[in-house]
Amino acid sequence: MKDYYSIAKTSNFKSLVEQGLMMKQEASDFSGIGKDKTLVIIFFSPSLRTRISTHKAGLKLGMHVISMNAGDGYQMEFDLGSIMNGNTAEHIKEAAKVLSQFGDMIAIRAFPGLQSKEDDLKDQVLKGFIKYATVPIINLESCLHHPLQGLADAITIEGNKKTAKPKVVLSWAPHPKALPLAVPISFAQAMNAMDYDFVVTHPQGHELPPELVGDLNIEYDQRKAFENADFVYAKSWSSTQYYGIPNPDLSWIVDAEKMAFTNNGKFMHCLPIRRNVVASDSVLDSENALIYEQAGNRVFAAQSVLHSLIEHS
Amino acid sequence: MKDYYSIAKTSNFKSLVEQGLMMKQEASDFSGIGKDKTLVIIFFSPSLRTRISTHKAGLKLGMHVISMNAGDGYQMEFDLGSIMNGNTAEHIKEAAKVLSQFGDMIAIRAFPGLQSKEDDLKDQVLKGFIKYATVPIINLESCLHHPLQGLADAITIEGNKKTAKPKVVLSWAPHPKALPLAVPISFAQAMNAMDYDFVVTHPQGHELPPELVGDLNIEYDQRKAFENADFVYAKSWSSTQYYGIPNPDLSWIVDAEKMAFTNNGKFMHCLPIRRNVVASDSVLDSENALIYEQAGNRVFAAQSVLHSLIEHS
Amino acid sequence: MKDYYSIAKTSNFKSLVEQGLMMKQEASDFSGIGKDKTLVIIFFSPSLRTRISTHKAGLKLGMHVISMNAGDGYQMEFDLGSIMNGNTAEHIKEAAKVLSQFGDMIAIRAFPGLQSKEDDLKDQVLKGFIKYATVPIINLESCLHHPLQGLADAITIEGNKKTAKPKVVLSWAPHPKALPLAVPISFAQAMNAMDYDFVVTHPQGHELPPELVGDLNIEYDQRKAFENADFVYAKSWSSTQYYGIPNPDLSWIVDAEKMAFTNNGKFMHCLPIRRNVVASDSVLDSENALIYEQAGNRVFAAQSVLHSLIEHS
Repeated sequence: MKDYYSIAKTSNFKSLVEQGLMMKQEASDFSGIGKDKTLVIIFFSPSLRTRISTHKAGLKLGMHVISMNAGDGYQMEFDLGSIMNGNTAEHIKEAAKVLSQFGDMIAIRAFPGLQSKEDDLKDQVLKGFIKYATVPIINLESCLHHPLQGLADAITIEGNKKTAKPKVVLSWAPHPKALPLAVPISFAQAMNAMDYDFVVTHPQGHELPPELVGDLNIEYDQRKAFENADFVYAKSWSSTQYYGIPNPDLSWIVDAEKMAFTNNGKFMHCLPIRRNVVASDSVLDSENALIYEQAGNRVFAAQSVLHSLIEHS
Repeated sequence: MKDYYSIAKTSNFKSLVEQGLMMKQEASDFSGIGKDKTLVIIFFSPSLRTRISTHKAGLKLGMHVISMNAGDGYQMEFDLGSIMNGNTAEHIKEAAKVLSQFGDMIAIRAFPGLQSKEDDLKDQVLKGFIKYATVPIINLESCLHHPLQGLADAITIEGNKKTAKPKVVLSWAPHPKALPLAVPISFAQAMNAMDYDFVVTHPQGHELPPELVGDLNIEYDQRKAFENADFVYAKSWSSTQYYGIPNPDLSWIVDAEKMAFTNNGKFMHCLPIRRNVVASDSVLDSENALIYEQAGNRVFAAQSVLHSLIEHS
Repeated sequence: MKDYYSIAKTSNFKSLVEQGLMMKQEASDFSGIGKDKTLVIIFFSPSLRTRISTHKAGLKLGMHVISMNAGDGYQMEFDLGSIMNGNTAEHIKEAAKVLSQFGDMIAIRAFPGLQSKEDDLKDQVLKGFIKYATVPIINLESCLHHPLQGLADAITIEGNKKTAKPKVVLSWAPHPKALPLAVPISFAQAMNAMDYDFVVTHPQGHELPPELVGDLNIEYDQRKAFENADFVYAKSWSSTQYYGIPNPDLSWIVDAEKMAFTNNGKFMHCLPIRRNVVASDSVLDSENALIYEQAGNRVFAAQSVLHSLIEHS
């Protein structure tokens, strides 16, 4: 593993899941693993969970961690050969090569603009860093992928499943804003990698890009999809047909009536969550909700990835 | 001690003062106390002194410290049962429970809006975190309390007093802006806990909430209040009668003429201070000013609280 | 060395260069040098390279490092005796004395406003901190000086020079914005201290302040200046005649045609750089470009300065 950009490009994903579970269960001191290594974390977009869990994971491995916001005014140039006398202050080539002098690995978050699907599909910031950096790049959520969330999700399911191949349902959810595709894409890639019985349910027009998630089992009837599910993962994402246009259709909320179709299914969400819009209080506050454990697993997911990148460096 | 929210609710306040003084005087290495513990610090409001002194205290105890600004756009929901399709992006229940996965203790700053006294008296952010978090919460200044400042103030007086029960005067001061009540409330609670001879002087209409500070000895004549004082603590706070309306009445400035009424009294202020508005240069630059020592004691106050929370966890 | 404010005021500059080179080449563990020392870093202006390289240098020396942005709203008072009932919230005297309680040394960045040359020449923030602080101050780029950049530049030239006294050319460059004088002033002071054959080339009206850089060898014909140069350092800076007015004159770009006049010269720039404005892609992407090595040397420059300040404290 050179970079941790997407789950589909991570050949050892299952071993990352196992290692994450192991690091969660063992009370060992891992602080020797990252000794004398520096993790540089750059946020082009806001972060709370990802910021703290990744920072903590680095410190737990004994790394030096330096975290910063790139700031609003810092616009980067991506095109080759351009005459930079406009708004862009630095070419991504320099940014990536300079940060490679400071960090033994670089973790980056850069959200999509949600204005142009064509632009967002380019995933310029992360792909540019991977192209030009000389050290490993860790994706902390780009336009298209949130692979540390997907890894934490897989760790959560592995730690809670009662059958070898549980039925897992990804259920689209309403939201007052159009949201990125990164979490559902990474979740789908994780479920593909884990060989679970995976079903996706969403309204027409919300199909995830097949070039990224493969040939999914889509069930447009939400209740039918939920039948016998062991895990239900709720998440809102933008329509891919009407890109960037919000879809607040509350009939897609996950509530107790729908969860009753499942096999006493566990409920998952990456947080933050809009209560009584994405899912009802009755679901979120039930014993079957795994949402806080999921958040806690973000630390072990990050530890597993950092550990693996250090081992292979 | 489960949380460090207010001084009145801290039964072991005197021992925190003693421990702070001890940690200041001893040259010991305290870095084993917080080993493998993580302190998460979240700022909903700006901070300089509190940010650096608390961060330093954590590092001195050997803790991992992760500090972040919550950001302007991050609005939290406090009501139960609400349908979150408006501006609030996360319920405080999730925020508190998630951060409890990452930190062994969580320190939070959240200032009042100073628009509605009724709202500010609810102290929603800190009280919400205490309600839902599963780890100790440390108050870095809320709408109503600044207990680390109050502890540093008590440490400063204990370290400088010449009699067992010194006379301490809290003197309201003018300011071009209306300021929160947190510092004077915590100072009053600290003085109550320390059993000093404590007098408060302020204009009519600036009475501190009796349900928080108890039955204070108020002297509306500032010069009379200063008579024989060993310590004078100047601080501006909003009128409680005309809440949020500035009171720039310069006749309340602390200057050399007024300090002459004291018993060669020491001058205190939590900083930052408006020179020649709150107090005159002659007072601030005199040998009797303890303002820099007070700021330095913020580190030992935070060390004492962190130490106590670790011991009792 | 008490503070690290400017290169001209640093009597041991050459030994800082040697120490930086030594720390770069040795694989030793320097983490004992800064044990139990705290480095406080305050940014009044944005930073990426300086932020990360200085933070990393502190951690490498085993220091506790606490870094923060001072924030937009935090305006400081510089005048003595003023009645602070306006926009300034804290006098620099308090800021400096308080931070001296928290840090064993304080590093500060504060850019010029580029509105008034007279104001910027006062360099109020850095000079105020040096005046009032009781611990060493490190300049992370002020209105007038960027001495860590100048030190990294000298380390880079020392590590790459092939003759004892190479010819070094500082070449003014066009830019869509007027830029500060700090980098060229510190570079000129560094070159003066190193006794290289130093030539400056720039358009009329861009003369650097002689009271800061001394009697420079100025050659107004850029191509003539480049003849037989071993190193060419490109940098834009504001006109000193028409202060703050941009000069985008692209005829001053550093390109391959001009570099052909040099003695197979190395190309330097402090980054970020506007490609095809300051220098052409052909120069930046050539084997003779030292720009990434220069950025990497920022860490060793900072390590050298921190080491020296700790030794002399």
